[in-house]
Amino acid sequence: MRAIVIGATGTIGREIVKELAPRHEILRAGRTTADLPVDITSADSIHALFEAAGPIDAVVCAAGDARFDPMDALTDADYRLGLTSKLMGQVSLTRIASTKLRDNGSITLTSGMLARMPTVGTTSIAMVNSGIEGFVRSAALELPRGIRINAVSPQWTVETLALYGMDTRPGVPAERVALGYVESVEGSMTGTIVDAGWVHDPTQGSVSVAVP
Amino acid sequence: MRAIVIGATGTIGREIVKELAPRHEILRAGRTTADLPVDITSADSIHALFEAAGPIDAVVCAAGDARFDPMDALTDADYRLGLTSKLMGQVSLTRIASTKLRDNGSITLTSGMLARMPTVGTTSIAMVNSGIEGFVRSAALELPRGIRINAVSPQWTVETLALYGMDTRPGVPAERVALGYVESVEGSMTGTIVDAGWVHDPTQGSVSVAVP
Repeated sequence: MRAIVIGATGTIGREIVKELAPRHEILRAGRTTADLPVDITSADSIHALFEAAGPIDAVVCAAGDARFDPMDALTDADYRLGLTSKLMGQVSLTRIASTKLRDNGSITLTSGMLARMPTVGTTSIAMVNSGIEGFVRSAALELPRGIRINAVSPQWTVETLALYGMDTRPGVPAERVALGYVESVEGSMTGTIVDAGWVHDPTQGSVSVAVP
Repeated sequence: MRAIVIGATGTIGREIVKELAPRHEILRAGRTTADLPVDITSADSIHALFEAAGPIDAVVCAAGDARFDPMDALTDADYRLGLTSKLMGQVSLTRIASTKLRDNGSITLTSGMLARMPTVGTTSIAMVNSGIEGFVRSAALELPRGIRINAVSPQWTVETLALYGMDTRPGVPAERVALGYVESVEGSMTGTIVDAGWVHDPTQGSVSVAVP
């Protein structure tokens, strides 16, 4: 199939491209450093991306910003960034992709494990991630022509934790997180939140591995 | 204790007031018809509410708008309404209440069961409800001075279903939904999503009653 990966040069995006490229034709998109330019906060930019890309079966989004900071330090503009970029940017991508993708195509968005396991400083990103998951469950009921939608919820990657000088042991290699995206693109599920990494299962009170 | 109920004259708000009033001093707030005026989309209006109210132990919000419509009929402005009103209105209320409430006070917001059980036409409200739940789980980790926060997730009320001429059998009486809010105000939980009504339990594949 022909697939667009948005955020293709990011820590996770790179690995998604690497996993999908042997089996599919991959178009790498991103704000600055990829082949096709796209800014998901602009509907015009998303339209231009599909225009430039031609017929597409799958779009994967591993992009979107939000601000981390304690609630009493976050400004209205900080909250707005997450709503405009990671949340509504991906919603806008979905609305446009639903009219552009080939029949039986797929849309794969990114939420994140802070939706369920927040820490201090994550009120904006936890809200955004949860919002994406609610949207995906609902949008799956409406997408036309067999188009599917899922969100991958990555654990922190080892690479990102190392970058910030943090303990990498709770992390998951980005290459392993990418398998969650592959499952969404190549599998048959829709309306699903794919746990990509180690997740805490509240019904078990224990830690389990959801992907692969 | 002294408590503010926002949306006090609404279907659910009325019943919350009725349940709490015998044991607490209740100040009824709302956009137009209650004792104290407040518009949760305006930070100034929320500040003015706390100014007018004096010392407060608990604030309950059963207010906030969002638009229902299929995804291909919802405009950017429709999505923005839900983000500005039900989502960020309640976030703004929380941020302000965290500095105004007495020690060991509580904040009770409203999400809704469409966060987990969406239907066609609910992409905006499902996203908003899920976003509120992610925010509440995270904000609970940061609130100072023993202040708690929960979200009540109401099932459709019998009253609302009847109003729209729909089958009322899946509904729950608003008076019973109100018990979820009472549990949040008078109990000790924080960061909890209170299922107020009949909920589908995906781990059981059955229907169960969560409140009371």
